[in-house]
Amino acid sequence: MKKNYFTPISQIGEFELIKKITNNVISYQKTTKLGVGDDAAIVSFSKNKNLLVSTDMLVEGIHFDCTYTPLKHLGYKSVVVNVSDICAMNAAPTQATVSIAIPNKFSVEMIQEIYDGIKLACKNYSVDLVGGDTTATAGPLVISVNILGESLGSKLSLRSGAQNNDIVIVTGSLGAAYLGLQILEREKLIFKDSAEVQPDLKNYKYILERQLKPEARIDVIKNLKNLKVIPTSMIDISDGLSSELNHISKSSNLGIKIFIDKIPFAKETRKTAEELNIDLLVSALFGGEDYELLFTVSLADFEKIKNNPIYSPIGHISKDVNGVKLYDSSGKSVEINQNSWTAFQK
Amino acid sequence: MKKNYFTPISQIGEFELIKKITNNVISYQKTTKLGVGDDAAIVSFSKNKNLLVSTDMLVEGIHFDCTYTPLKHLGYKSVVVNVSDICAMNAAPTQATVSIAIPNKFSVEMIQEIYDGIKLACKNYSVDLVGGDTTATAGPLVISVNILGESLGSKLSLRSGAQNNDIVIVTGSLGAAYLGLQILEREKLIFKDSAEVQPDLKNYKYILERQLKPEARIDVIKNLKNLKVIPTSMIDISDGLSSELNHISKSSNLGIKIFIDKIPFAKETRKTAEELNIDLLVSALFGGEDYELLFTVSLADFEKIKNNPIYSPIGHISKDVNGVKLYDSSGKSVEINQNSWTAFQK
Repeated sequence: MKKNYFTPISQIGEFELIKKITNNVISYQKTTKLGVGDDAAIVSFSKNKNLLVSTDMLVEGIHFDCTYTPLKHLGYKSVVVNVSDICAMNAAPTQATVSIAIPNKFSVEMIQEIYDGIKLACKNYSVDLVGGDTTATAGPLVISVNILGESLGSKLSLRSGAQNNDIVIVTGSLGAAYLGLQILEREKLIFKDSAEVQPDLKNYKYILERQLKPEARIDVIKNLKNLKVIPTSMIDISDGLSSELNHISKSSNLGIKIFIDKIPFAKETRKTAEELNIDLLVSALFGGEDYELLFTVSLADFEKIKNNPIYSPIGHISKDVNGVKLYDSSGKSVEINQNSWTAFQK
Repeated sequence: MKKNYFTPISQIGEFELIKKITNNVISYQKTTKLGVGDDAAIVSFSKNKNLLVSTDMLVEGIHFDCTYTPLKHLGYKSVVVNVSDICAMNAAPTQATVSIAIPNKFSVEMIQEIYDGIKLACKNYSVDLVGGDTTATAGPLVISVNILGESLGSKLSLRSGAQNNDIVIVTGSLGAAYLGLQILEREKLIFKDSAEVQPDLKNYKYILERQLKPEARIDVIKNLKNLKVIPTSMIDISDGLSSELNHISKSSNLGIKIFIDKIPFAKETRKTAEELNIDLLVSALFGGEDYELLFTVSLADFEKIKNNPIYSPIGHISKDVNGVKLYDSSGKSVEINQNSWTAFQK
């Protein structure tokens, strides 16, 4: 390796790296309708049929810790995070391939357990496992899933379609997956000090499940279709609300006003945040891994869903501000200096 | 991790592992026409349009060695091995996604170099890079490519379609990639002992290129289409001729007779094999990474291609034998006890 290559990736971050490696990507195929830059790519092999393609790679030690992640849950989650990307296009998953790099410490039975989770997720989301690759590695376990999807008949939703005055909606509740991770990390440290102490985790069932066995919101996609609600833009919340809001703002070239007291939290999340002395807002904005959907709708479409508690309006699109602005209940602007989760730590 | 999980993967091997993890895969989508078990899966989103999906994962230390692999070549090869899987279905590639797990030692510039190779391969094979994922890893570099493809208008070729008396054809020549690897490994050892010695590799240009910058045989797919030759079965030679012949034999449920003196070798390959005292036949049967195509055709179709030197007939399908049987020029049966390349070493 040459010595004059020196810029550490952590110095520029993941998004800048992606910009650099994709800045001169050329399209040769007329079937490609949307390439790099959204939750999934769009390929059109026939007149009225758009195919969605997305991929996500999970690396041991970066995305999961085998000391506290049940292998079946890990397999399940590796599919779900990909299903979530397809849902984020207002579409449903159809087929997946799974590639896995297996360290020496993993036995046949352990790999089967991972695949039991993969196959259970495939069953729950009606995804066909159609291929993959298996290889050895001298390093950590790596699971790379590629997923295909198609529209349920509704319009696809990109990150770039938000319009001025659209309402910004979040599904379910946020922050739980991050707090679940904090509990698991805490128990890991206790276990290190004294292996005899058996952790009592029953009070944390909800938040642990949100971290270890998240679900993708295909129910939301089906519900929106039934109600004839067409999100003008959409993204899934994998890196944290802050990062996702910024993606929609940048892609749609419009500002966003968010009212922080409108951000939804489960009561278990509030309780654990208090216990751990963690700012709830930080868990939602920067925690990530909630796999809820963030989307925008017109005022007319908002009327159709406003009484359903799974949809929380948290703000609106506004051409009067630059980027994402947060406000408290008194209307005062709130500044938060923190970054979302990134695989590339300094 | 539980202690009662004990079967090492090397004990059962990759193909047995794949059988175990895919043995109860269920199909939920009527669009899935062919799942696990061929070079690519077939998905049919509209009446006359079949889409191909395949994926391959390359792991540093298993599939490549960064001490002698130029990064641009590595990126190029990671796409080509996937293009080869699509060609092996008698089809052409269209879109790809690339996921990469990046160790700390890799700088931004080095990753850009890998992507320069990826983008060059995309250009040469008219593949659109439509997405991917980037992450950090504490382990080796991992590149996972997923590729889509479509038929050029000809019939797709599966591994399972060979018919009794079909001629078995190999494109190009075999064994060179394996010998290239031996030269690189030899030079690596010399370099370890004395870093001042500059290797003189000009005599090995051809075989090194076959190892470091292989090409996929899209030219063959186009030629077969022009000649209206429809392979009854097809596979690409990635693990070694022996392994691929066995796949066709098993999938087609027919025996194969191979005449070893018909297996094609380049003169550079012959010369290096002699120099390194390596059995040419071993390099072809078990070396792998040649990325040539192995296919079967009817006698009528064979007439159309028999004068073109890129197609070498090496034997025929025969219901009179079980599995793959090798014969020398005198018609005597040849036994070779060796295994093809596998990622899972004991």
